[in-house]
Amino acid sequence: VTAEACTVDPAAVAARDRRAIARALSAVERGGAAAATLLAALPAGRRAYRIGVTGPPGAGKSTLTMQLIAALRGRGSVAVIAVDPSSPFSGGALLGDRVRMNDVADDPEVFIRSMASRGALGGLSAAVADGADVLDAAGFDWVIVETVGVGQSELEVVRVTDTTLVVVTPESGDEVQTAKAGLMEIADVFVLNKDDRPDGNAMWNALRRMVDARRRVVVDAWAPPIVRTVAAGGRGIDALVGAIGGHRAWLGEAGRLAERRRARGRERLSNLVAARFAAQLASGAWHARLESALDAIEDGRETLHAAAEALYANAVGRA
Amino acid sequence: VTAEACTVDPAAVAARDRRAIARALSAVERGGAAAATLLAALPAGRRAYRIGVTGPPGAGKSTLTMQLIAALRGRGSVAVIAVDPSSPFSGGALLGDRVRMNDVADDPEVFIRSMASRGALGGLSAAVADGADVLDAAGFDWVIVETVGVGQSELEVVRVTDTTLVVVTPESGDEVQTAKAGLMEIADVFVLNKDDRPDGNAMWNALRRMVDARRRVVVDAWAPPIVRTVAAGGRGIDALVGAIGGHRAWLGEAGRLAERRRARGRERLSNLVAARFAAQLASGAWHARLESALDAIEDGRETLHAAAEALYANAVGRA
Repeated sequence: VTAEACTVDPAAVAARDRRAIARALSAVERGGAAAATLLAALPAGRRAYRIGVTGPPGAGKSTLTMQLIAALRGRGSVAVIAVDPSSPFSGGALLGDRVRMNDVADDPEVFIRSMASRGALGGLSAAVADGADVLDAAGFDWVIVETVGVGQSELEVVRVTDTTLVVVTPESGDEVQTAKAGLMEIADVFVLNKDDRPDGNAMWNALRRMVDARRRVVVDAWAPPIVRTVAAGGRGIDALVGAIGGHRAWLGEAGRLAERRRARGRERLSNLVAARFAAQLASGAWHARLESALDAIEDGRETLHAAAEALYANAVGRA
Repeated sequence: VTAEACTVDPAAVAARDRRAIARALSAVERGGAAAATLLAALPAGRRAYRIGVTGPPGAGKSTLTMQLIAALRGRGSVAVIAVDPSSPFSGGALLGDRVRMNDVADDPEVFIRSMASRGALGGLSAAVADGADVLDAAGFDWVIVETVGVGQSELEVVRVTDTTLVVVTPESGDEVQTAKAGLMEIADVFVLNKDDRPDGNAMWNALRRMVDARRRVVVDAWAPPIVRTVAAGGRGIDALVGAIGGHRAWLGEAGRLAERRRARGRERLSNLVAARFAAQLASGAWHARLESALDAIEDGRETLHAAAEALYANAVGRA
């Protein structure tokens, strides 16, 4: 527990004090008891609408995020958590130069912060979910989470959001093919960005086929719209905001949003409890037991799975 | 527990009966008690040398893997686990046509199998580690694990191997930039494949700079060699086998291989115990407690982190 973490004032976070918010997010990033204490002291937000922006490297997610910030500012305050190490928000290079980061960064109703997992229990997705809670408690109307990749862990990070945008380009064929099932699982809106390049129609058709194939199997589900954009030129951003609004309206029906947030809470709670347990295993008495089990496995006296069963039974007091 | 899982004969696996091996791998993929029982009954292998092959989609990993199979066959039997959904081993399309899959698939000393995570406790990386144990118990000399992606979960899958090859192409700039730290952490050998394309030198220089930068900071560590290949034409494969041998020899010094395998065992054991705990949370009495905690969180009577602490204390019998 560092001094910095201890001096976060929950009331200052709730009053949207930028320095207090930054400290709170640092505490969340570090994780541990200090973060848990802080998070327990924050008022419940539950007002912010959470948008995820994910996709392969080079898809233009950061430029798109900046356009979104500008477009959403007419509807409230906006905070961004960037977990993309190549994002300009995280110190990476900004490729599209038509959108100026300073235009949004100087706005007091905009808060941008990069985040990495350091000690947070449950890893990066837990830290991002906690970070979004901090921004929600600070009263932001919109929280955007930008993350890079098409791998499973990236998908997990973005799962903490209400509406997830999957951003691809006309060149993303390999990535889309590889991650097909995963993308369909998480995409609420597909964004075909850099649509001024060749092969935009081919990619659009590929996405269309994926969405249609799913629609034939899963009845009454949300069919992700495909929005074509050129984020660097601001093209298609209004349509994208409209698509987000459409998904939000759909979620609002029949208690779907409450259900989605409940499922998210269930997952976070189970993961937090399991992570506490895992941390316990690495410490003190458990560490010694783990090592002697490893000796037994190496000597061939015990198998990995039998040792795991014995340790588990012991840990929960059933042995 | 299905009938199929129950009928796996550990002795038949050890005798390298192909059908028994296939059934054992299916059981491992499904996970659960049947898999644990089977794994506990298998003889400890500990002879197979495990090679990971990972990299972004389209890097040519499957073609490279097939070339590796052919090259390693002179030094023993070879088994492959493909966790890459775009791999021809998993039913995907084979792009390079100069290597014929049938050339290797008909060889009784070669075993190729795709794998996905279904119910395995601890997810895909646990299933792959268990699968490699099965192949080790079956007496294969080489076990290759092919996985796609540059995300964290892909890196975790490949972490079960002794030597990890990270395969990139001259066009992989974005991916390499994004995943730099993660790649340096897992790469024992870099493979610059499709090196007959333009920009091979630029990519080679980028990799070289990464390796050199790390070497200046981390003293006495292994410096990953960079092998340039054209897998579809068989170019550079001998050099690659040499690089793998070099890393293996380095691991053999000063007890490094034993240490690496111990660390791997420690991680698997902790994860198995934690996963058992997490599974327990989803069931019976725990499920009801989880739901009432979620009610309390939704009503604002409790915070997520306080609820997690209380559930944990209760679960390990300390409340």
